[in-house]
Amino acid sequence: MKKKAVILLSGGLDSATCCAIAKSRGFDIYALTFDYHQRHRIEINSAKKIAKYFNAKEHRIIKIDSSILKGSSLTDNISVPKKSAKKTSQNNIPNTYVPARNTIFLSYALAYAEIINSSDIFIGVNAIDFSGYPDCRPKYISAFRRLAKLATKSALYGNPIRIHTPLINLSKAQIIKKGMTLGVDYSLTHSCYDPSPFGKPCGKCDSCILRKKGFLEAGIRDV
Amino acid sequence: MKKKAVILLSGGLDSATCCAIAKSRGFDIYALTFDYHQRHRIEINSAKKIAKYFNAKEHRIIKIDSSILKGSSLTDNISVPKKSAKKTSQNNIPNTYVPARNTIFLSYALAYAEIINSSDIFIGVNAIDFSGYPDCRPKYISAFRRLAKLATKSALYGNPIRIHTPLINLSKAQIIKKGMTLGVDYSLTHSCYDPSPFGKPCGKCDSCILRKKGFLEAGIRDV
Repeated sequence: MKKKAVILLSGGLDSATCCAIAKSRGFDIYALTFDYHQRHRIEINSAKKIAKYFNAKEHRIIKIDSSILKGSSLTDNISVPKKSAKKTSQNNIPNTYVPARNTIFLSYALAYAEIINSSDIFIGVNAIDFSGYPDCRPKYISAFRRLAKLATKSALYGNPIRIHTPLINLSKAQIIKKGMTLGVDYSLTHSCYDPSPFGKPCGKCDSCILRKKGFLEAGIRDV
Repeated sequence: MKKKAVILLSGGLDSATCCAIAKSRGFDIYALTFDYHQRHRIEINSAKKIAKYFNAKEHRIIKIDSSILKGSSLTDNISVPKKSAKKTSQNNIPNTYVPARNTIFLSYALAYAEIINSSDIFIGVNAIDFSGYPDCRPKYISAFRRLAKLATKSALYGNPIRIHTPLINLSKAQIIKKGMTLGVDYSLTHSCYDPSPFGKPCGKCDSCILRKKGFLEAGIRDV
């Protein structure tokens, strides 16, 4: 029987690449996606397609109560900043930051891993071509790793849960190149924070810009 | 304006005491309760009464997707161990342990605190008269404190969120005595893991036993 990996799968290109990496390392995929009333909920459809593409053994889509994860342009009636606009939030963290999002997502991943008896969680955080969110930084991940070692019954009995972040030091171009060698079909992924009702990317938000720059630098055409 | 405290309020006697302590320290109460399909969901009614009793400014009740937090006798079709029964789970942690529960609850508290601009979270964990859950131990709390310092935007801008655990080193009797001096009405609280459909405590589960022992040692009659 193959080892089981919990993959935090948003539907974006990073998490799709993470899925491919886990698969290439011999894991069966147990995908975990969140419906947190994000503006770009269309990414959940991409997550479904990616999970299917990688023959996920399970794909759980967890609803987060709509009263939490607020105060962000991704979840509230606040404009998503575009390349021509000034950053609208305090200092350098854009208003697309969602309070404690990765902590909530990783906590659920911890519970899910423990339930299915998995010791491995993959999260596609990246600290190179990213938006400066505090909960994507390597030292945040280190702190979560430490927490995970203490938080669960399985950890207590010598089976700690590992948090894998294979993309953390890669540029977006490197992530795309890596994914291409592993057969990721990036046409299944969605990146835009502020798509049209039919899912057309705006082309101007941070996420669109990072994606565009990544494909350009990788010398690969985005389909 | 008073400072705001997020209180993890289950409806049990520990969290009610925590609420009283936060109030006595000059905080306004922002209570946070979870409906995770627990067998003793009746505790949510107690949480509502306690929040009202302490004039909470807000009381949020968050639903947790029913597909998660499973594998416990509190959330699955598994018998809750009673005093006459053997402990049913691995080594000494009873099967009432819920995977990653406190990590999920504290993560939500972190998000809630950030949304309402609070720097203080109170959780009534206790490592003396407790069931041995890994996520109640002081070193687990220390690891979460460390995480909280890195996880949020407010932390990044010099306003870290503090995790208060005023009961961690108290016995159940000491908790009850403390609460009595602060005017807690323990008749509003619910402890039993396996109540009758009308909320009558079973008197035999770990939680009932710890409560009984606590009142007995405190020399106070449980109402």
